Amino acid sequence: MAVDVPVALLGYGTVGAAVNRLLEEGADEIQRATGHRLRVTRALVRDLEAERGYPAADGILTTDFAAIAEDDSIALVAEVMGGLEPTGEYVLRLLRAGKPVVSANKQLLARRSAELFAAASEAGVQLRFEASVCAAIPVIKVLRESLVVTNVHRVLGIVNGTTNFILTRMEGGAEYQDALAEAQRLGYAEADPTDDVSGADAAAKMAVLATVAFGSRVLIDDVAYEGIESLTPADVEAARSLGAVVRLVGTATLVGDAVDVRVSPALVDREHPLASVAGAFNAVMLQGDAIREITLEGPGAGGIETASAVVADLVGILGTSGTGFLQGDACWRELAALPPGELPSAFYVRIDVADRPGVLAHVAERFADEGVSIARLTQHLVDGAATLDVVTHTAPAGRIDAALEALAALEDVRGRPRALRLIAERGV
Amino acid sequence: MAVDVPVALLGYGTVGAAVNRLLEEGADEIQRATGHRLRVTRALVRDLEAERGYPAADGILTTDFAAIAEDDSIALVAEVMGGLEPTGEYVLRLLRAGKPVVSANKQLLARRSAELFAAASEAGVQLRFEASVCAAIPVIKVLRESLVVTNVHRVLGIVNGTTNFILTRMEGGAEYQDALAEAQRLGYAEADPTDDVSGADAAAKMAVLATVAFGSRVLIDDVAYEGIESLTPADVEAARSLGAVVRLVGTATLVGDAVDVRVSPALVDREHPLASVAGAFNAVMLQGDAIREITLEGPGAGGIETASAVVADLVGILGTSGTGFLQGDACWRELAALPPGELPSAFYVRIDVADRPGVLAHVAERFADEGVSIARLTQHLVDGAATLDVVTHTAPAGRIDAALEALAALEDVRGRPRALRLIAERGV
Repeated sequence: MAVDVPVALLGYGTVGAAVNRLLEEGADEIQRATGHRLRVTRALVRDLEAERGYPAADGILTTDFAAIAEDDSIALVAEVMGGLEPTGEYVLRLLRAGKPVVSANKQLLARRSAELFAAASEAGVQLRFEASVCAAIPVIKVLRESLVVTNVHRVLGIVNGTTNFILTRMEGGAEYQDALAEAQRLGYAEADPTDDVSGADAAAKMAVLATVAFGSRVLIDDVAYEGIESLTPADVEAARSLGAVVRLVGTATLVGDAVDVRVSPALVDREHPLASVAGAFNAVMLQGDAIREITLEGPGAGGIETASAVVADLVGILGTSGTGFLQGDACWRELAALPPGELPSAFYVRIDVADRPGVLAHVAERFADEGVSIARLTQHLVDGAATLDVVTHTAPAGRIDAALEALAALEDVRGRPRALRLIAERGV
Repeated sequence: MAVDVPVALLGYGTVGAAVNRLLEEGADEIQRATGHRLRVTRALVRDLEAERGYPAADGILTTDFAAIAEDDSIALVAEVMGGLEPTGEYVLRLLRAGKPVVSANKQLLARRSAELFAAASEAGVQLRFEASVCAAIPVIKVLRESLVVTNVHRVLGIVNGTTNFILTRMEGGAEYQDALAEAQRLGYAEADPTDDVSGADAAAKMAVLATVAFGSRVLIDDVAYEGIESLTPADVEAARSLGAVVRLVGTATLVGDAVDVRVSPALVDREHPLASVAGAFNAVMLQGDAIREITLEGPGAGGIETASAVVADLVGILGTSGTGFLQGDACWRELAALPPGELPSAFYVRIDVADRPGVLAHVAERFADEGVSIARLTQHLVDGAATLDVVTHTAPAGRIDAALEALAALEDVRGRPRALRLIAERGV
């Protein structure tokens, strides 16, 4: 029997609306994982009439905090309103009233976590904050639950997508101001970009990460930070010539019994996992004794991505309260196997051919016959022997196989063509 | 009050000994996280007298499975013996006897998970298996606990370190046979490497990952796999010319209501996150609706790395049984802040200088005076103006600052030198 669990949201902006949407659309998944159905019954807003991306049902929105604080039916609260006040007081009051809280608020966590956790502990409820750093990347959970005994002694992070986007563009030749303007146009940067480009946003995230990684409080004021405003094309060029890229890097380092947390532009060696983090993505590398290093990469911002982390924390509270169960058999359905040959993929195909007129046309025809379209074709000539390098667009593997059969049968083709899947698609 | 929790190990080889070591060395961390102390009280072995990397205390080792199965005091069991039989029967008997089990056994999970989970469910105990894929990379936890509502529809993985090492070497110009021999010399590949190079090992891991990602059972026999034995330098060269690298890639894809899981060599575009996975590392990319894509990278094998995942699962069972608590304040100590200037780092320094004899010596001297040693120095001449690009070895940041002060005071130096941290060190 599913138990309905009423959830309140503090805030119903982009993230809040996305949390409501994920809880509604994912209700069955959550029930399978925890035995409960999570349902938003109240959401605190400033303006009842504002347009919402995903509207709440009638009667959910309220401008009255007491309607949440004093509603005994509410079992879980997600704080997605941001800001320090009145947010901090709201969260404290809810925790003291015995309500578990999930917060997406890095600024609040990086300043008042001691007080908040003391209140949570006294009331015997949980306070979770996965969404406060790097959106959907589950770095807090991994640090706290997977790496308990690994003595993590260093955390490196690209934890601000705006600056990473700007730096990636500068790598491509853009000037700082133009790259910033583009980031603003695409919605990656605010009209006032100070918080991002100064490193302040990254500093708050590194404070939260360092606190969790080392088990010792690090506040935002403890983090030395420097932004990217002063970076020049000469820096980017110097990086290139040294086989590196410029990134805004946060580091939290345990040196003996002391902690150093800082954010600054840095050269990152091209072979380093953080160097391949491009565009608005984030990545965090955790270095520890038993794990050597684990790197987590993904989108570090965005409404639905942040909401995904909020929902994970809500589910996590259910799953660790003795009322839910996250660890049973993962299987709940029986999907069919995709028939052989139906999986679509792009392919690379190498064909050894005789160097004769008309060969190219014959080869291209065989692909066309199977409905496989060619993205790129290059001919190499070595000692009178010719090799064709073909890159196809995405097509069902079976069509590629059929084209290969037809190609092998051509008089001009020598041996069997070589085909390899080509992995390029991203989930973005 | 800490409660002692007796743990039994099935197997005491490299992984088992490392689990015992981590539980002993990490006992305080585990107690802080869960309120319990985990202690190995029994370990099943074939030979009591064999040499062990981390010896067990007297009386722990036993050759008698009944000494574990019939010991009511044992609260948790970690299966780290590998193999299908008698391992499968042992695990079934323990689950039926009401003992939660953590398994590192991908072959067992990829073949018999239905039966095992049915037994666990009937007895109301947990069966966890993080260590069965990609060692310390917590991909199972992330899939099951962080991505409940994100509808993961594609999993891409480099899940076999041996083949990835060989392919990385081939990229560097080595022939397949030589790269394999080197992998064997370094202990990355077995004397009989068939399981790795044929793709069978990766296929078992992809079966486990697909099962968890899609919630529908995928057995190893459902996975089409092809290994790397037939790859040639021509394939590697073709990849390079197309801006790609060759990798052994596992994919699990949800196409409508059907599943496709396969392992094969593939060309991976250089811009793709999986392309930067080098050497014996593993990486798994999860693509889903709310998260776009999240990539987890780290060491995919190794005794202590695998043991780290086993311990995380043991801790996870405690943390979700209503008897432990993983979500309180992360802080348990007060570390000092590292004094400013003491954090060691390598630096890149750019110095504009007059193009005069002796300048280089003066510059080098200022670094030497501060005990900063130079890894690389390049001089660029443009229109009579000279720029020095200096890369230092690791030194305390304060020493670099002092050297910069001294450099700025030099008559031959124009303006203030530019310094950026250089991130190159890995946790490996």
